[in-house]
Amino acid sequence: MKSGDIKALLFDVFGTVVDWRTGVARDVGAYFGPLGVDVDAFAFADAWRAKYQPAMEKVRDGARGYVDLDVLHMENLKLTLEELGLAEVVDERGRAQLNKAWEGLPPWPDSVPGLTALKSDRPIATCSNGSIAMMLGLARFGGLSWDALLGAEIAKSYKPKPKVYLGSAAAMGFAPEEVMMVAAHNDDLIAAQDAGLRTAFVPRTTEHGPFQTTDLEPTGPWDIVAQDLLDLARKLAD
Amino acid sequence: MKSGDIKALLFDVFGTVVDWRTGVARDVGAYFGPLGVDVDAFAFADAWRAKYQPAMEKVRDGARGYVDLDVLHMENLKLTLEELGLAEVVDERGRAQLNKAWEGLPPWPDSVPGLTALKSDRPIATCSNGSIAMMLGLARFGGLSWDALLGAEIAKSYKPKPKVYLGSAAAMGFAPEEVMMVAAHNDDLIAAQDAGLRTAFVPRTTEHGPFQTTDLEPTGPWDIVAQDLLDLARKLAD
Repeated sequence: MKSGDIKALLFDVFGTVVDWRTGVARDVGAYFGPLGVDVDAFAFADAWRAKYQPAMEKVRDGARGYVDLDVLHMENLKLTLEELGLAEVVDERGRAQLNKAWEGLPPWPDSVPGLTALKSDRPIATCSNGSIAMMLGLARFGGLSWDALLGAEIAKSYKPKPKVYLGSAAAMGFAPEEVMMVAAHNDDLIAAQDAGLRTAFVPRTTEHGPFQTTDLEPTGPWDIVAQDLLDLARKLAD
Repeated sequence: MKSGDIKALLFDVFGTVVDWRTGVARDVGAYFGPLGVDVDAFAFADAWRAKYQPAMEKVRDGARGYVDLDVLHMENLKLTLEELGLAEVVDERGRAQLNKAWEGLPPWPDSVPGLTALKSDRPIATCSNGSIAMMLGLARFGGLSWDALLGAEIAKSYKPKPKVYLGSAAAMGFAPEEVMMVAAHNDDLIAAQDAGLRTAFVPRTTEHGPFQTTDLEPTGPWDIVAQDLLDLARKLAD
């Protein structure tokens, strides 16, 4: 693969570009703290996120029509609150406020300079399972300067369905092999590669906290393995 | 209307943000000049653009399923070449090259500083009949720093259908009345206002050349009338 063959970059966002666990835990702590309710904010974030894949799976397998991730997150928040015995503590307004945590997640330290460097050479777009509104919120919050917000909402399905990668590449006007998917998750890259895209792996070894056991290393034949997004910019400039 | 009620701005692009006539004529001239073919480049641009509304009308009235504007432009180019007796002169590759003119249109002088000023206060997105790929090309070409590329392609219909305005506002996560449509075309604003959006008119009195007769003045009760996008930024900051 020559770098010049890559016309555009697509990015996974949750975990790859922004640190969802820290951001969600921060808002959970800020919400329950003043109420005097003792909650392990990181455990709350983990419990909420654990319901992410099962909820999307119903859409992917056709058991449910496409609904945006905001809707799934809200349903999963309700389940999480019930599990943790907090359903009575958080009213509708509080739930809406907590659900907005997913639009205010901190970028990893290299994300903003890395994306800025990468954008100077080719268009960069999201290919996230998050909605356009979530991507817009995250970009405004974190200073992420995307060229386009693509992914699940425009494809009306969820990754790793091929149509999400293919629809995002096509929306930019490029063939799959002209587009590189960048992610911290090997399974995301397996699906992108199967769909004909190029792939770059960037490890985020604390996405799930200090005791993370998954995605510590690249496990497939990815076109590029980079330390972080700044390193990816250097490698694509070679 | 208070400026603080406006949470996001949507923009018409062709004519309002970029000068399509000058840009298309430039590429038409650059194409035919070296071939020694005498073509009035501005007349060519006007003839091509004249087929724009009738082509979209077939999609709007349901006679044809949604296809991107790139496709309609290519069909209209073919018709224009036939009309002007140039069908034999331009091969497939030349047509593809000419069609790309719509991704390389110069912004009006106030567009880049105006959008930059407007973006500092609230998200700015396209609500164009152009495709995402066209908007991406225009943004990269002209340095337009959109937060999101919305409009026809995500709504799968063409303005002035209400769903294009409503779908774009919803994609950003806002209610129609929280979003202001900015356009140089009164009919665009009529439709946006009917759909419940706020409206701002910015005259572009040379969009159709020096003898323009339409849209020289605001003709409806728009929330804001501004001289240009910098003036709009000042008025929204009041």
